[in-house]
Amino acid sequence: MSSLAQAVLAGDRLSLARLLTHVENDTPEGREALDMLFARTGRAHLVGVTGSPGTGKSSLVNQLALSFRKLGQRVAIVAIDPSSPFTGGAVLGDRVRMRDLAGDAGVFIRSMASRGSLGGLAQATVGVAQVFDAAGFELVLIETVGAGQSEVDIARLAHTTLVVEAPGLGDDIQAIKAGILEIADILVINKADRPGVESTERALKSMLDLAHPVQKIFLHHGQRMTIDPVAKPGTETVLWVPPIRRTVATDGSGLPELVTAIREHAAHLRGSGEWQRREKTRLSAEFDLLVQQTLVDRFRAGLPETKFNEIIDSIQNRKISPREALNVLLNGSIQ
Amino acid sequence: MSSLAQAVLAGDRLSLARLLTHVENDTPEGREALDMLFARTGRAHLVGVTGSPGTGKSSLVNQLALSFRKLGQRVAIVAIDPSSPFTGGAVLGDRVRMRDLAGDAGVFIRSMASRGSLGGLAQATVGVAQVFDAAGFELVLIETVGAGQSEVDIARLAHTTLVVEAPGLGDDIQAIKAGILEIADILVINKADRPGVESTERALKSMLDLAHPVQKIFLHHGQRMTIDPVAKPGTETVLWVPPIRRTVATDGSGLPELVTAIREHAAHLRGSGEWQRREKTRLSAEFDLLVQQTLVDRFRAGLPETKFNEIIDSIQNRKISPREALNVLLNGSIQ
Repeated sequence: MSSLAQAVLAGDRLSLARLLTHVENDTPEGREALDMLFARTGRAHLVGVTGSPGTGKSSLVNQLALSFRKLGQRVAIVAIDPSSPFTGGAVLGDRVRMRDLAGDAGVFIRSMASRGSLGGLAQATVGVAQVFDAAGFELVLIETVGAGQSEVDIARLAHTTLVVEAPGLGDDIQAIKAGILEIADILVINKADRPGVESTERALKSMLDLAHPVQKIFLHHGQRMTIDPVAKPGTETVLWVPPIRRTVATDGSGLPELVTAIREHAAHLRGSGEWQRREKTRLSAEFDLLVQQTLVDRFRAGLPETKFNEIIDSIQNRKISPREALNVLLNGSIQ
Repeated sequence: MSSLAQAVLAGDRLSLARLLTHVENDTPEGREALDMLFARTGRAHLVGVTGSPGTGKSSLVNQLALSFRKLGQRVAIVAIDPSSPFTGGAVLGDRVRMRDLAGDAGVFIRSMASRGSLGGLAQATVGVAQVFDAAGFELVLIETVGAGQSEVDIARLAHTTLVVEAPGLGDDIQAIKAGILEIADILVINKADRPGVESTERALKSMLDLAHPVQKIFLHHGQRMTIDPVAKPGTETVLWVPPIRRTVATDGSGLPELVTAIREHAAHLRGSGEWQRREKTRLSAEFDLLVQQTLVDRFRAGLPETKFNEIIDSIQNRKISPREALNVLLNGSIQ
C-alpha cells in the first residue's frame, strides 16, 4: 500500500490533507491511494445538504457537525463552493468555518471549488468522500449551493439528502422547490425564527403531498414512515415520507430533532434494504463517471493538439459538422 | 437534406417544434437534421441569462424578447427549467410565458427540463440553439436558474452572458456573486424599484472592481469600454467592463438601456475579434461534449447489462475498486 494511504489510515491529518489534494487534482498518486483505500470504504453515512442561497446552509452544516461530534462520531465536511468557478475561492470558506470547529481532531473540513469540466467536480467529490470514509469518518456532510444538476448529483452520491429552505426567500422559489423536493429525504426550514415560517411550512407540505401522492393520506395522520398502501399484501415496502424540521442554526434550535431525523433515516435505509440499493446506484453512477473521464482522456491523449485545432477550424468554417468531424476521427468516414 | 430540416428552413413552426423534440431526445433523425443544418448556423446572437431564484429572470427574458421583436429581430427563448429534474415540469412554464408573447410568429419558446445525465442537458441545449440559429432566429435567449456549474456552461455556450440580481435576496448571496461576476458580460439589477437597490449596486460595483482589477481605474471614470492599460503599445486589445443596468421587468423600466447594452456587447465582440474567439471556445466545448457522449455510448453498447451488473456487484462487495474494474474491461488487467 502507498505510504500516503497508510499514513491516512494511521490517522495523520497532514497526510489526509495531502491525499485530498491529490484526489482533487486526480494525480497518479491520488488514484493509486484511492484504489488501495477502496476496500476500507462503505461504512460512512454520506449526507448531502443543499438549498438555495440565503438559507443559511453553512451554519446549519457547522451545527450538525457539532451535534454529531457530541454523539462521538468523527465528522467530515465537504463544502462544494461554487462561488468561484474559475479562480477557486475555497480558502476563505475554510477559515470562516474553522472558528467554530477549530482544534477538534474529530472534525475535518474540506472546501472544493467548482471545476470547469462537466463531471470533474462530481468525480472529485466521490473520491474525497471515499478518502474520508476509509479514514474512519462516520459522517460525511456534503454541502452544495445551487439549484438544478448539482442537487441531482448529490442525491446520487449521498445516502441521505437534506434540502434546506428559509422563510421569505422570494417568489419563484416555489418553482424550484417542486423539483428539489423529489430528491429530499429530510426538509429543513432554517431561520425558522423569521416571519413567514408558517406559510413556508404550509407550502412545503402541500408540495410534499404532490411529490409523494401515495403517502398523501398517511401524511395527514402525522406519520412519517408508512407501508406502501398500493402494494399487494406480502410485497409491502416501508416507505419514507420526508419529514419537515424547523431549525435556527445561529442558536442551535431544532438541531436535536434534526439529528434524530437523520439517524432515523439511516436506520430506515438499513432496515429496508434501501441502503444497499442506494449504494449500488451510487457506485454505478461513480463507475459511469469514471468510464466517461477515462475514455475522454484516452481519446485526447491520442489526438495531437494541431489535429484538434484543424478540426475545430473546419467546424468553425462550417465545412463539417461536429458529429461528422468525430465520425471521421473514429471511423475514417463522415458517417 | 432531410424533409424535416427542409420544412424548418422553410419556416414551418410545427416542423420546428418536432425537430426540437428530436434534438432534445437525441434521436437519429435529430442528429441527421443537425448535421444538415450545421452549415446554416453561426449567425444568431446567443445571449445567456442567469441568476439566483427570486430575481425575476423569466419576466426579464419575456421583456427582452418583446423589445428585440420591436427591433424586427426574430427571437427564440430556451428556458432551462431545473424545477423538475426527474419528472420534467417544462409545460407549465411554456403556457405561462405564452400569455405575453402569444400569436407572434417571430417568437418561439422552448422549455427544457434538466436531464439526469451530466452533460446531457448542455448537449441538448447546444443542439436546440443550433436549430434556432439555422432557422433564422437572430437572437437566442438562453435562461437558466441556479448557481454554479450550469452558469459556467452557459458562459461557454453564449456570446453574451447576463447575470441578473435583485435587491435584498439574503446574506450569503454575496458569496455567490463573486464567482458569477466572472462570467458576466452585463449585470442586471432587476426589481430595481425595491428597497436596497443602492446597496446592491454598490456591492456589485466593488465586486466588479475585484473581478476586473485591470480596468479598475477606468471604471471610476464611468467608462465601459477601454484599452488594456497594461498591454504593450501596438498590442492593445479593447476590453469590455461589464456595465450594470437597472430594470423593473414588470413594467418595462430600464429595458431600452439593457437592449442597448446587449447590442453594444455584440458590436464589441465583432469589432475586437472576440466573437470569433468565443465561437471557437464554444465549438471546442461542444466537440468535447460530443466526444464524451459518443465514446460513453459506444462503450456501453459493447458491454452487456449482465456484465455491467457483475462489475457493480464486485465493486459493491469491495472486491475491486472502480478504476481497477475499468482497467480489467479496457486492458484485460487490473493496471
